[in-house]
Amino acid sequence: VKYLPQELILIKRSGKALTHDQIQEFLEAYLSGLVEEYQMSAFLMAVFFRGFSAEELTQWTQTMVSTGERLGICTTTCIDKHSTGGVGDKTSFLIAPIAAVCGCQVPMLSGRALGHTGGTLDKLEAIPGVRIPDSVEGIEKLVEKHGFCFGGTTRSMAPLDKKLYALRDVTGTIESTDLIASSIMSKKLAENLKGLVMDIKVGDGAFMKTPEQARNLLEKIQMIAKSNRIRLKGVISDMSQPLGHYLGLRPEIYEVLMAFQNKAESRLMELSLELASKMLLVAGLEQDESAAKVKVESALMSGRAYQKFCEVIEAQGGDISTFENPEFYLSSKHHFEILSPRSGYISRISTEKLGYVFSALGAGRKNISDTIIPQVGAKVSKKIGDSVVAGEPLLTGFLAEIPSQILQSQLAGCFEIGDVKVSAPELVIERF
Amino acid sequence: VKYLPQELILIKRSGKALTHDQIQEFLEAYLSGLVEEYQMSAFLMAVFFRGFSAEELTQWTQTMVSTGERLGICTTTCIDKHSTGGVGDKTSFLIAPIAAVCGCQVPMLSGRALGHTGGTLDKLEAIPGVRIPDSVEGIEKLVEKHGFCFGGTTRSMAPLDKKLYALRDVTGTIESTDLIASSIMSKKLAENLKGLVMDIKVGDGAFMKTPEQARNLLEKIQMIAKSNRIRLKGVISDMSQPLGHYLGLRPEIYEVLMAFQNKAESRLMELSLELASKMLLVAGLEQDESAAKVKVESALMSGRAYQKFCEVIEAQGGDISTFENPEFYLSSKHHFEILSPRSGYISRISTEKLGYVFSALGAGRKNISDTIIPQVGAKVSKKIGDSVVAGEPLLTGFLAEIPSQILQSQLAGCFEIGDVKVSAPELVIERF
Repeated sequence: VKYLPQELILIKRSGKALTHDQIQEFLEAYLSGLVEEYQMSAFLMAVFFRGFSAEELTQWTQTMVSTGERLGICTTTCIDKHSTGGVGDKTSFLIAPIAAVCGCQVPMLSGRALGHTGGTLDKLEAIPGVRIPDSVEGIEKLVEKHGFCFGGTTRSMAPLDKKLYALRDVTGTIESTDLIASSIMSKKLAENLKGLVMDIKVGDGAFMKTPEQARNLLEKIQMIAKSNRIRLKGVISDMSQPLGHYLGLRPEIYEVLMAFQNKAESRLMELSLELASKMLLVAGLEQDESAAKVKVESALMSGRAYQKFCEVIEAQGGDISTFENPEFYLSSKHHFEILSPRSGYISRISTEKLGYVFSALGAGRKNISDTIIPQVGAKVSKKIGDSVVAGEPLLTGFLAEIPSQILQSQLAGCFEIGDVKVSAPELVIERF
Repeated sequence: VKYLPQELILIKRSGKALTHDQIQEFLEAYLSGLVEEYQMSAFLMAVFFRGFSAEELTQWTQTMVSTGERLGICTTTCIDKHSTGGVGDKTSFLIAPIAAVCGCQVPMLSGRALGHTGGTLDKLEAIPGVRIPDSVEGIEKLVEKHGFCFGGTTRSMAPLDKKLYALRDVTGTIESTDLIASSIMSKKLAENLKGLVMDIKVGDGAFMKTPEQARNLLEKIQMIAKSNRIRLKGVISDMSQPLGHYLGLRPEIYEVLMAFQNKAESRLMELSLELASKMLLVAGLEQDESAAKVKVESALMSGRAYQKFCEVIEAQGGDISTFENPEFYLSSKHHFEILSPRSGYISRISTEKLGYVFSALGAGRKNISDTIIPQVGAKVSKKIGDSVVAGEPLLTGFLAEIPSQILQSQLAGCFEIGDVKVSAPELVIERF
């Protein structure tokens, strides 16, 4: 090696920037085991405090991509959507088939549930029989044949991201905007995209608690997208309450089926259609936002998107006959209601806490190796600004067992009720 | 474990203080392998950026001591001197026997040469036959019988310090004042001292480059000493040029022998006597600085200190017949002179660089596993403020081989010569 790892750590610790070569050599040596985990963790902590320059961030991300395999779909309309994660977000299930119907190639590669947030891949597996393609070839074949697929980043794609994330998770170095941005973008660049639609969530149920944090992350993502000539559009959207009414694996599939019938919560529909419209723009299929909107609405309302959805689920082994009776996705051992202790208006929902409680009840995972109970989840009946009468249900839990008194009072405590009606938070905080 | 390591890392990362219990549990778990090296290195980097509170620093240091063995010398006059390291510092060889002759118990536990700095243990081993006691009992026996010994911290004393230092060395986390102070003091507290004399070096050849850095370190050391009821005195002293005229293992022993005859450089003599006087004060043997000075001067001038030195060297297996012919310690294969390119006055000596060049020539080590050539070293003839005539030697190297042209010009470049006489830097910058 040309540089000692500790020399590179000292450069970063002092706030100076590493060169192109230094970053590449350092990351490659880490992947091959020449740089030790304890050296990388000290480096990552220095990055937390000092940050990356635009050039460092670009090079760091590019090396994460170049050391792994990339998808070989090279059409100009190969695009994807990515959300930074929240509670009740099931837009991917709607957006991918809509965009595919409109002419995009969408390798919708998603992640797993962790902590208080849900994961698209887990929700997908709540559909009986579904298989997730585990190779680059498998993903390419599905996308080429059907226009999209539901997959995950394979072992061979961005392997550094997996190694770095596992280390960050146990060394208190998750919350670096640079490392978050490079982690997201390394997986997206490995998809060989021409365009990307980002949904940066902000609020209590998101990782970014303030619009300022969300804008910082956006800025970093824009840097990486620009230097890789990826067309980028998207929104900073509200996550101060769950998106839609349902959370949990099967309950969210139920809500997806309702959304294909245009019977879901208006906020969920609105965000899905806005993000889908932006997909057509970054794919270069439409130049104009309102024309794109007309196209995606027609794809949904005509039933073509639902047809495409069923086609791909079936191609991935899923039993689409279960869709004929959506109530199948709401069957759990116990239904349990949390009733409002008073009359008034919902003023606040502790969304992160709600996510953690349902994760503890079996709808999510604390550690990546935990198993999830697909039936567990909830219908959140009341949202911010809604009026509520004493004794009315705030939330219906779909549970494997009756929750303890402690969990019940934690759930009740997630809803703040005031005397004055507050307006619902703006769904879209910023468009880019 | 009560706390996940990453939770404690996050507390430190946010700048908050860990509790007594959290620090103790974290360090004990690290020593036993339950906290991983990659978690500790991330924590240490967070400490570099956030620092420790006074309580954290005390608890961190005390846990480093309590997890190891301590010396069992419990007299009220059991004291030690510690220097933060520099080039040409051989005061320990004079101070320990002087203090012992005056009634102190001195377990003079020193370190090894590393980087540009020398190490007392290596210089000691340049005396043929010398053995370093490798157990607590061995050290205790020597100190009880002779009043002092030359030893090192054994494997059983402050084992966490060794583990932490090795990790800091390869993760860019050496330069934290808190970690430096706790490392020094953990070894001193393991000696079970009642008093400590500190020589904090400042200048180009020291680790602390500015008086401000030296004062920061002093403040941390004072905190730890106070909470452990250790009497502390000392100086911040100049290391902008080598101390004395000689550097290298055997050449420095030569200078020690000269000093016992009061024939060494006045700055070396002055600093040694001042530090030795302070030993009597922290031991409680004298209340008054001038009375202490009289006593230590008499110990040196009367030859009693030299006699004591010979007694201990012999007890540690050293061949003191070599002292009869001090020139033995200046015999090397090649003597090589660096001549002054011009007439004028020495205005600056790049002491750190000088240390590194001689380390590369064999007088020191880059890595802790390197071996040192005891004959290699130098006589620095000219010091800051001295006049020099063109062609006069600035430095005589005692070498195993003729240095390359590059090293020769690097050595010549260590001396800056100007037209105007500058005064020698103050030897003692601050007394405490």
